[in-house]
Amino acid sequence: MASVLEASSASDWRQPDAANTLYMQLDHGRVVFELAPEFAPRHVANIRKLVNNRYYDGIAITRSQDNYVVQWGDPNAGNENARSLGDAEELLDGEFYRNAADLPFTKIDSRDAYADEVGFSHGFPVARDSADGRAWLTHCYGMLGVGRANSPRSGSGAELYVVTGHAPRHLDRNVTLVGRVIDGIEHLTTLSRGTGPLGFYEDASEYVPIRSMRFGSDLPESERLAVELLRTDTATFRALVEARRHRAEAWFVDPADHIGICNVPLPVRRIN
Amino acid sequence: MASVLEASSASDWRQPDAANTLYMQLDHGRVVFELAPEFAPRHVANIRKLVNNRYYDGIAITRSQDNYVVQWGDPNAGNENARSLGDAEELLDGEFYRNAADLPFTKIDSRDAYADEVGFSHGFPVARDSADGRAWLTHCYGMLGVGRANSPRSGSGAELYVVTGHAPRHLDRNVTLVGRVIDGIEHLTTLSRGTGPLGFYEDASEYVPIRSMRFGSDLPESERLAVELLRTDTATFRALVEARRHRAEAWFVDPADHIGICNVPLPVRRIN
Repeated sequence: MASVLEASSASDWRQPDAANTLYMQLDHGRVVFELAPEFAPRHVANIRKLVNNRYYDGIAITRSQDNYVVQWGDPNAGNENARSLGDAEELLDGEFYRNAADLPFTKIDSRDAYADEVGFSHGFPVARDSADGRAWLTHCYGMLGVGRANSPRSGSGAELYVVTGHAPRHLDRNVTLVGRVIDGIEHLTTLSRGTGPLGFYEDASEYVPIRSMRFGSDLPESERLAVELLRTDTATFRALVEARRHRAEAWFVDPADHIGICNVPLPVRRIN
Repeated sequence: MASVLEASSASDWRQPDAANTLYMQLDHGRVVFELAPEFAPRHVANIRKLVNNRYYDGIAITRSQDNYVVQWGDPNAGNENARSLGDAEELLDGEFYRNAADLPFTKIDSRDAYADEVGFSHGFPVARDSADGRAWLTHCYGMLGVGRANSPRSGSGAELYVVTGHAPRHLDRNVTLVGRVIDGIEHLTTLSRGTGPLGFYEDASEYVPIRSMRFGSDLPESERLAVELLRTDTATFRALVEARRHRAEAWFVDPADHIGICNVPLPVRRIN
């Protein structure tokens, strides 16, 4: 993998769009997300309103379930002390999948347990159904999703979660995924696990406060994450997938010759 | 899943064999492992010697790599201050796979990215190759493995790791797996991530000391973990796999109808 990346050219890399990059500030560190408006335009637009309304500033991480998710929201949601969402929508139609036809797609050769075809698009892991023409983001480690209640039309982005365990792919096409963590995931994955049902914290004193959520475009350039992401529509990325499929490192006795969609790394490199 | 377990009978459950259950005591909690002598008899026997020699008492967790593994060993291994392994072997032939022919196997219907067939045996996730007759434990979340250097004959059990992220299945058949965590995995998964290469802690002050490792049979009964594990060769277990494959809960819009080997839960229940 190192040699594939060393052989890459400048044009294989892209800087994340500051207007689509979300920064969550916790007391113990900062987590940075890249959003996926190509897959969930309504939810990304709603999250933008919530950020602009400072909805997330001062709410908290209320759940950490081992081998599953970390989740945050307004602990008072649903009661009289609930925060106002301002001009953001309270209920959005789910964006569980989209039309595959006009979506760029770097297919990878992988026998997937859950989908017909898997690959990458716009830097995100994606599955497709060649029979019905749908495409959707897959619940790999680090993906960012929109909590919802039983009605499929009950998410807004006011409650969000990050996958912190083995990919819960049964959630695919049941939840709107809106992006993924590109930096600082360890600030979420090392949080104490909640001891209540589903890993919710049982006592409010365990909540992990969110100091702020901001878009990169709201921050001075000096405070933005200075990274580049490997484009997934390049020959370099395809070579990386092959290098991960067939492990040439001396350590491997049996070089696998297989790969899963959630085992493909999405390289990020620091710049400056 | 809850209703499947409620309908189970007493004989669907088993208590782990105290002589095969390993207890790791850390300052902040206890992690319990069930070993798999059916798959790695030589390594389990060597780990038994190391436990009896108190080899692990006072060594440390030296590595926590996000979305990958937590690993422990003697920080002085390889230098003049290395601990003695006593009568344990320093180098063992790898036990990367075994003969499938005489292994009980509850096959699950799953299209697996890495193997021809997958299922469960003796309570562990297993893959098989129907062409060459081999079977092996799979690197699912919580599996316990034996660190080794480049030579396939370089593991002993003196260095062990636990999978703490998305299943790194490319390690299958390259490492000897010897068991899995059955309790307390959160004491490993919440550890600070190491900031050195491969998630090793850069400073010895970051090491997490291991106070002791003991077999259940070494402990008074009152200190043993009082649990039962669901047998994987039962109709109840097969019903559970189907309930997880087709999610009947009201929340699901699209009940998946697929399942991956590492997405099957292995139920543990407290007794007394």
